[in-house]
Amino acid sequence: MAPRTTFSAQVRQSMIPNALRSYLAEFISTFIYVLAAAGSAMASRKLMPDARSDPSSLVVVAIANAFGLASAVYISSSVSGGHVNPAVTFGKVVGCHIPIPTALFYWISQILGSVMACLLLKIVTVNQNVVPHAISEEMTGFGASVLEGVLTFGLVYTVYAAKDPRHGQMGSIGPLVIGLITGANVLAAGPFSGGSMNPAYSFGAAAVGGSFKNQAVYWIGPLLGGAVAGLLYDNVVYPPHDSDPQRCGQEGPRV
Amino acid sequence: MAPRTTFSAQVRQSMIPNALRSYLAEFISTFIYVLAAAGSAMASRKLMPDARSDPSSLVVVAIANAFGLASAVYISSSVSGGHVNPAVTFGKVVGCHIPIPTALFYWISQILGSVMACLLLKIVTVNQNVVPHAISEEMTGFGASVLEGVLTFGLVYTVYAAKDPRHGQMGSIGPLVIGLITGANVLAAGPFSGGSMNPAYSFGAAAVGGSFKNQAVYWIGPLLGGAVAGLLYDNVVYPPHDSDPQRCGQEGPRV
Amino acid sequence: MAPRTTFSAQVRQSMIPNALRSYLAEFISTFIYVLAAAGSAMASRKLMPDARSDPSSLVVVAIANAFGLASAVYISSSVSGGHVNPAVTFGKVVGCHIPIPTALFYWISQILGSVMACLLLKIVTVNQNVVPHAISEEMTGFGASVLEGVLTFGLVYTVYAAKDPRHGQMGSIGPLVIGLITGANVLAAGPFSGGSMNPAYSFGAAAVGGSFKNQAVYWIGPLLGGAVAGLLYDNVVYPPHDSDPQRCGQEGPRV
Amino acid sequence: MAPRTTFSAQVRQSMIPNALRSYLAEFISTFIYVLAAAGSAMASRKLMPDARSDPSSLVVVAIANAFGLASAVYISSSVSGGHVNPAVTFGKVVGCHIPIPTALFYWISQILGSVMACLLLKIVTVNQNVVPHAISEEMTGFGASVLEGVLTFGLVYTVYAAKDPRHGQMGSIGPLVIGLITGANVLAAGPFSGGSMNPAYSFGAAAVGGSFKNQAVYWIGPLLGGAVAGLLYDNVVYPPHDSDPQRCGQEGPRV
Repeated sequence: MAPRTTFSAQVRQSMIPNALRSYLAEFISTFIYVLAAAGSAMASRKLMPDARSDPSSLVVVAIANAFGLASAVYISSSVSGGHVNPAVTFGKVVGCHIPIPTALFYWISQILGSVMACLLLKIVTVNQNVVPHAISEEMTGFGASVLEGVLTFGLVYTVYAAKDPRHGQMGSIGPLVIGLITGANVLAAGPFSGGSMNPAYSFGAAAVGGSFKNQAVYWIGPLLGGAVAGLLYDNVVYPPHDSDPQRCGQEGPRV
Repeated sequence: MAPRTTFSAQVRQSMIPNALRSYLAEFISTFIYVLAAAGSAMASRKLMPDARSDPSSLVVVAIANAFGLASAVYISSSVSGGHVNPAVTFGKVVGCHIPIPTALFYWISQILGSVMACLLLKIVTVNQNVVPHAISEEMTGFGASVLEGVLTFGLVYTVYAAKDPRHGQMGSIGPLVIGLITGANVLAAGPFSGGSMNPAYSFGAAAVGGSFKNQAVYWIGPLLGGAVAGLLYDNVVYPPHDSDPQRCGQEGPRV
Repeated sequence: MAPRTTFSAQVRQSMIPNALRSYLAEFISTFIYVLAAAGSAMASRKLMPDARSDPSSLVVVAIANAFGLASAVYISSSVSGGHVNPAVTFGKVVGCHIPIPTALFYWISQILGSVMACLLLKIVTVNQNVVPHAISEEMTGFGASVLEGVLTFGLVYTVYAAKDPRHGQMGSIGPLVIGLITGANVLAAGPFSGGSMNPAYSFGAAAVGGSFKNQAVYWIGPLLGGAVAGLLYDNVVYPPHDSDPQRCGQEGPRV
Repeated sequence: MAPRTTFSAQVRQSMIPNALRSYLAEFISTFIYVLAAAGSAMASRKLMPDARSDPSSLVVVAIANAFGLASAVYISSSVSGGHVNPAVTFGKVVGCHIPIPTALFYWISQILGSVMACLLLKIVTVNQNVVPHAISEEMTGFGASVLEGVLTFGLVYTVYAAKDPRHGQMGSIGPLVIGLITGANVLAAGPFSGGSMNPAYSFGAAAVGGSFKNQAVYWIGPLLGGAVAGLLYDNVVYPPHDSDPQRCGQEGPRV
């Protein structure tokens, strides 16, 4: 019943206390996730300098991603919706679940959280370098973008399902499942495209690690994959029963 | 009370929009699962070309199977029932939970999803080959079929339990437990029969990997194991309280 | 209010259809659990014959135990209570939750399930041997019994907590947590006492593997640990609010 | 509405039967957690004496921490609140959730549980030594304190979220998520600062292992991190809707 809010009203709503709290929640969650994910990559590199050639290093990184993201989504879930990932936020904008100004502040919070986590890791470990995402030698940038996009499709589709009240009591394990699909995808793509699925994480690791090589791969693929997931979920697989064309901005910080 | 639906009515019902949505959900879920499972086998092969002789490679593949399947079942659970596996669908047909025409479309969707995931992996990784399931040298095809059948029995029995409303609030972790039993079984059978338990996955890996050797093992065992699980669960261990002989087609896409 | 049932009435109750179903459920669950646990030990032994000296083999076995037991408890939970372990059943008898005749049939079902799983593994893998539990060279049988007993204390205490309706909605993850404590304990004790915590599993592996060396360690420790856990939980940490001295046989198969 | 209880009343309340039960619950849970965590470090050291240089040893320790802590928190959750960690208790005191005398008895119970677990491990394994937490050579004590503090911040923040009734049905997986963030953080910090996040665990391992080197790192960091997490959660991110300034001592043992 609520009339479509105007853009300037959306900007004003994105600055109210509840909105600011949700940005802080996104910052904290992304910080905690990237600390675990980037830290585990540094840890396995320290234990085995040639870590890229050992399956147990892949296990280390995948489990850190799965467990870290599940926790990060869990703790911010009832404040900000638990995005922790610009691709998720983008998918939510495309699906018209949150207004654009709110999404921009989410992105800024996520990127700041990631950069701060990587900076902290670099400083406290003294000689260790943050490991930016990289693609396997024989792969093309296009192939890596496609792979990261498809993996992010699976992640964002799962985020949509985890938030869907039609899942009933299964909603209680939503944050866990979001972590599990991330871990599974890292195991599949780690030695190929790195398995980031998260532009904020890739940006932080690149900025602090000092190499923006192939950075576009970790933005174009995930953003497109997230958008397709949102559109497909909302419009084809799980269309709303009572279609309300004016639901833009329904989610996000509660006013 | 509902009269047994005729076969032609079942065929018609298998083409309504809700049914089409459930096929799409099965396609997406199987795609996401096989991408993680087959991708992780390729990843550990890339990290360690002689990966078949290292326990950490087994961990990589088993966790990818567990986490990937849990997510895949979760996201399709409230549309298609979250089969993601022709053996599960077969078990549901034998137990008379879904009509045969629906089951055929489920199978086609699952096989298509698996083939597409394997094709994508082969293309984007350029030089890597998809790894078909294989049986250990000293084992016979019959022994491998028995092992895959027994493992699939455990999986399909768990699927039945996870969907049983008599499990009460424990239903909320159903998709997770389906993933866990799969991961546990892969750890037990990986170096022996491969631990597939899923004819669609084995078919996709064989078709794209280029070797249909022992393919029958991954169909006969799982289909029989799934059928036995369904019959045993429904008729012996958890018989329905008010026996209704005409419940065929109760589950599956909601009309 | 129900009068204490006599022993002969208990025996009669242990033969009704619901009771027989619960024995079958215990058989199936123990079979599925031991298949994963014993199979994973054989799998890592096959991948790396000197598997006892590699941490990744310990991961393989621990995750198979965790995931396999969580699933096995889950699927039998609403029929038999999901014991899957003679030490759990013994703890339930000592705490007077199930009658002795029922417990004996539970034991027989669990041991049969374990022996069958080990036999199947030995037969289908042709040349592989089932790996019995063993204790580290420098340890004494007494020390190993103490360790297995303390680990089983933790497991049975967790089983009690998982079944306690006072845990509210957290009851939904009960079977999962029972799996997790098992996995954690295997990681701690694997290279020392084997980390069995389950006399049925140890008996099956010993009978099929052909070595009953130190078998007493895997009975005395776990049974004592389970009994202490039950008594401590019921009488000290979580005493019942309205004390009913005649609750013997409350749990177990529903009449 | 309840008036702020005086300190002497708080001391008296900390000695009632329910309070004593909660101390026992903390003792048992910390014992079970440290048994798994410290035992797994000893197990991987036994399997591979140079375990510090292998990623699979890190996986062993991280999973034991994750699974062990999830179980330990689960079993004590409805008696003592499931702290299992002096840093959590400190964060609850700073946030004024439990009275100071209760917190002191919690600390004593946790430290005793940890020391007993380490002692038991040392005795039953005969020749093995408990492994105290240690920091990487190139790191400073200050850097390690910061890292442990930030990791504990994430853990205690998650504990707060897991207990928050505003999380609705997601509360059912609270203990699990507390375990997951711990496992993720161990993967990130294991080879750098050890990834303890728990002064009781570090104290027990140091006392039995015979080296208090850098012990301060494992107290200052975690206690500060826990305090900041409690204050931030309660006052900034999830402020209470109806602010009650007199809620001190609300949680803890129920009177």
